[in-house]
Amino acid sequence: MSSERVIYLPLGGAGEIGMNAYVYGVGQPGQERLILVDLGVTFPDMDGSPGVDLILPDIQWLKERREQLEAIFITHAHEDHVGALAHFWGDLGAPVYARAFTANIARRKMEEHGHPERAVTTVSPWPETVQAGPFTVGFVPISHSIPESSGLVIDVAGQRLVHSGDFKIDHAPVVGEPFDEDAWKQIGAAGVLALMCDSTNVFNAHGGRSESALGPEIEKLVAGCKGMVVATTFASNVARVKTLAEAAQAAGRSVCLLGRAMRRMIEASVETGVLTGFPRTISPEEVKEIPRENVMLIVTGSQGERRAASAQLSNGKYQGITLKEGDTFLFSSKTIPGNERGVARIMNNFSEMGVDVVDESGGLYHVSGHANRPDLSTMHKLVNPKLVVPMHGEHRHLREHVKLSKSNGFKGILAPNGTMIDLGGETPTVAEYVETGRTYLDGSVQIGALDGIVRDRIRMALNGHVMVNVILDEDDEPLGEPWCEIRGLAETGVSRAPLVDVLEEDLSQYLGRAGSKTLMDDDKLEDGLRKIARNTAQGEIGKKPEVTVVISRLSA
Amino acid sequence: MSSERVIYLPLGGAGEIGMNAYVYGVGQPGQERLILVDLGVTFPDMDGSPGVDLILPDIQWLKERREQLEAIFITHAHEDHVGALAHFWGDLGAPVYARAFTANIARRKMEEHGHPERAVTTVSPWPETVQAGPFTVGFVPISHSIPESSGLVIDVAGQRLVHSGDFKIDHAPVVGEPFDEDAWKQIGAAGVLALMCDSTNVFNAHGGRSESALGPEIEKLVAGCKGMVVATTFASNVARVKTLAEAAQAAGRSVCLLGRAMRRMIEASVETGVLTGFPRTISPEEVKEIPRENVMLIVTGSQGERRAASAQLSNGKYQGITLKEGDTFLFSSKTIPGNERGVARIMNNFSEMGVDVVDESGGLYHVSGHANRPDLSTMHKLVNPKLVVPMHGEHRHLREHVKLSKSNGFKGILAPNGTMIDLGGETPTVAEYVETGRTYLDGSVQIGALDGIVRDRIRMALNGHVMVNVILDEDDEPLGEPWCEIRGLAETGVSRAPLVDVLEEDLSQYLGRAGSKTLMDDDKLEDGLRKIARNTAQGEIGKKPEVTVVISRLSA
Repeated sequence: MSSERVIYLPLGGAGEIGMNAYVYGVGQPGQERLILVDLGVTFPDMDGSPGVDLILPDIQWLKERREQLEAIFITHAHEDHVGALAHFWGDLGAPVYARAFTANIARRKMEEHGHPERAVTTVSPWPETVQAGPFTVGFVPISHSIPESSGLVIDVAGQRLVHSGDFKIDHAPVVGEPFDEDAWKQIGAAGVLALMCDSTNVFNAHGGRSESALGPEIEKLVAGCKGMVVATTFASNVARVKTLAEAAQAAGRSVCLLGRAMRRMIEASVETGVLTGFPRTISPEEVKEIPRENVMLIVTGSQGERRAASAQLSNGKYQGITLKEGDTFLFSSKTIPGNERGVARIMNNFSEMGVDVVDESGGLYHVSGHANRPDLSTMHKLVNPKLVVPMHGEHRHLREHVKLSKSNGFKGILAPNGTMIDLGGETPTVAEYVETGRTYLDGSVQIGALDGIVRDRIRMALNGHVMVNVILDEDDEPLGEPWCEIRGLAETGVSRAPLVDVLEEDLSQYLGRAGSKTLMDDDKLEDGLRKIARNTAQGEIGKKPEVTVVISRLSA
Repeated sequence: MSSERVIYLPLGGAGEIGMNAYVYGVGQPGQERLILVDLGVTFPDMDGSPGVDLILPDIQWLKERREQLEAIFITHAHEDHVGALAHFWGDLGAPVYARAFTANIARRKMEEHGHPERAVTTVSPWPETVQAGPFTVGFVPISHSIPESSGLVIDVAGQRLVHSGDFKIDHAPVVGEPFDEDAWKQIGAAGVLALMCDSTNVFNAHGGRSESALGPEIEKLVAGCKGMVVATTFASNVARVKTLAEAAQAAGRSVCLLGRAMRRMIEASVETGVLTGFPRTISPEEVKEIPRENVMLIVTGSQGERRAASAQLSNGKYQGITLKEGDTFLFSSKTIPGNERGVARIMNNFSEMGVDVVDESGGLYHVSGHANRPDLSTMHKLVNPKLVVPMHGEHRHLREHVKLSKSNGFKGILAPNGTMIDLGGETPTVAEYVETGRTYLDGSVQIGALDGIVRDRIRMALNGHVMVNVILDEDDEPLGEPWCEIRGLAETGVSRAPLVDVLEEDLSQYLGRAGSKTLMDDDKLEDGLRKIARNTAQGEIGKKPEVTVVISRLSA
């Protein structure tokens, strides 16, 4: 019993903002009983993961220990916390616990993947708890930018751990429970071994602002608009959608929701009772029947996503609706770093149509869902743990959060993905480093981020591609001339002759020179042809392309 | 003579921030004598232009009129104003005018491309002028973020045009001439037909701050640092480099410049006399000889560029220098939208090393080089033109700037790239729309942005690539089995057999089924094989790849 330990192991989320997956364990080393908190995704980009559909955490370590896994707890329904659940549930098979709204979203995902919806159990908030093996887990309502977010109180082996989940300190969050300082203080008063704490906004020095601060500003804006008003925000930010809809109502405008995610989120909110009193909405068909100054569209695509409603409206038309001069488009959202170009593209398209674009305007029309630096300090003090373990952040956020913890008088430990922390004893220690990483969902299959597949795509995109085709007869002599096809390369280079012709000429000369030893050896011949193709391209167009050589032997 | 007109035609820069190229003309329609103001580049990205080296404006219109071109004027030495000069000079051949520092940089570029350096003439600032055909052009010193920036006064056909160039209102710019309100007022007092005006910061509502505001803050920061200090900024921001170096000096630190662009810019500044009193610098070798707390590196790579000094230091080592725990890295720069991921990567690498990263900290360590909204209004009023023509901005910037002009009581006209404005008469009118666009420098050749070459690269990156190889004998019968090679695709799909095997099997069956009519027809056969390959891949891995089919006929 003395060798039992309590461990914490981030498999995702502690090294990026996104892709959250945190393991807790208790027991003899190597035989711990485990729970998993959150199982999210992050999103691919053209720079690092072209063609990839979703990025999932590499949870190989956990898959190999599925027998030790007691349960999966989902703190809230954001994709970076629940998005990978259905992709991996088949490999884990553990019961899933979440509050009603989150469970509703989780079940939709499970169903889409053919998993049993009953694997997801709806739980009531703290002080009720769930027993999962040696773990007693309570969902404590906490304010964030989606309904029913929860921090978790995890009691295990006589110790209390607090997992903040994503949170902000908001005493009037419009939808859902306000931040409850007393509850957190009480939870802390029982003695907390460690607080695992959101780090997203650690670099933001100002105190956070309440969701409810936006209503009057948005109302004022909408009241002053003449044509149609369109607003976009994250569909999951149900409070914001409500604020927008109420501003529309106040200005005598009917609300139309556009985009699948938007309708689904509002549907789930109403079904689960977290959203009440939402104004009646109208259909896209009805929009066309009433004067445009009496309409407000609330649409998906705040991050410039190419297929979402915002992008489609900016390209001309969506569900039969067209924007025009005098209309107003509001981004009630912040652009996530990396999405600037896509958002700017939409803004410029609207500008060309004569549509006035209004952005968040320095916080006038958007507030963050995460605790800023002073609010993180408040949380530290309320929970008063022996140890702060920063999570949900890039390395620089985690590091800064450790510094902040120390300046608040708390022990802090830097635990990026794969760092297994032994939380017991007087000093927390690194028990082990576990291999972690990223798994790509690519079409319908999962591939490893380091498999070389995506690297090859990037190389083709950067360097272009030459295919070289050679046929050798029964005597290993070239049959006809080598044949080239190029893709993604300039058609003519410095010699002004077609690149393909120059390549074929040089390859042909090489074949003519090649001895029978080379011609008989596939590897040697391939190397030789590749080198010629790359050098010729370099000379002609100044690029060394990727080369695929296909050698066909009639002798075979 | 009555049918003479004065025209303005942006070929680049009025539709993006970057790639500036503005044509002015006077004469009978179609026979105007022309001048070109600036000839810049913009930078490629993985999203839209993978593998491309530089993006140049498409100046086909001007190339076809090279006989009408009197001269090229370069307002300042930023790449988006001078970067395309040497790439296109061979097609234009006109004399180039610039002030000393800009001319120094321009000549270096001309030399690198084998063009005569004497094509670039150094001019003295206003009130001196250059005569170029019917144009009289003066370079009026104006504050910006590079030495010797100029606005142009263009007197032609009894009219005065003012081309602001990039500018800010800075009365103490550290290096170079302060903004001279009186000079601009006088220029305006003579009567100005049109002001072509920088639009970059039109959305920034606050008055701009002076470069000289940073010195004390940076000095304070550096004085408080313990280990080595490294600072990055645009190399061309010579005033900033000077401020950084002086902060180092004040803290008893020796300065070492790292990165080719950094050394070249300082060299050009000293050569042309715009920079004096710069502290003595030390070499990378000397850095290793003295205590790290006595060193400050000033390095390239503020935008996260992979090959620049910042990125290399963050990856471990540059010129033998390694950073370590306790060192400080300052971004005295703003991240240009689209570069966030690259910059964050560097910040996180430094975080992993234990290096403290300090960003611009909300303007504490960086100021913009462009005029904010109130400063644009000041410029409008000083120059007091009949017409404001916004330039240097995306569509949304230009449109907003037209609005601002109107609210200031000036006529404004929206003229994106390709819009030829007839400036004469009582009302400016659109004379013509000219085709404009982008030319890519790709390796050593120029390709059109719409040639399909880069589109093919993007498709390979998104979809992966399958090569199908079929050999037909003299009787148009398949010789052996079809052969596949894949690149950038998962190796196994849902059937758990290698994707290549499944593809080859399905292609083989198709060939077996194909009638002689198909087998004899290259196009038909290719279409059929492509369709099979795409469908099979879709079934196996959920992706429809790019397919290249090579059919070899022994009959040929």
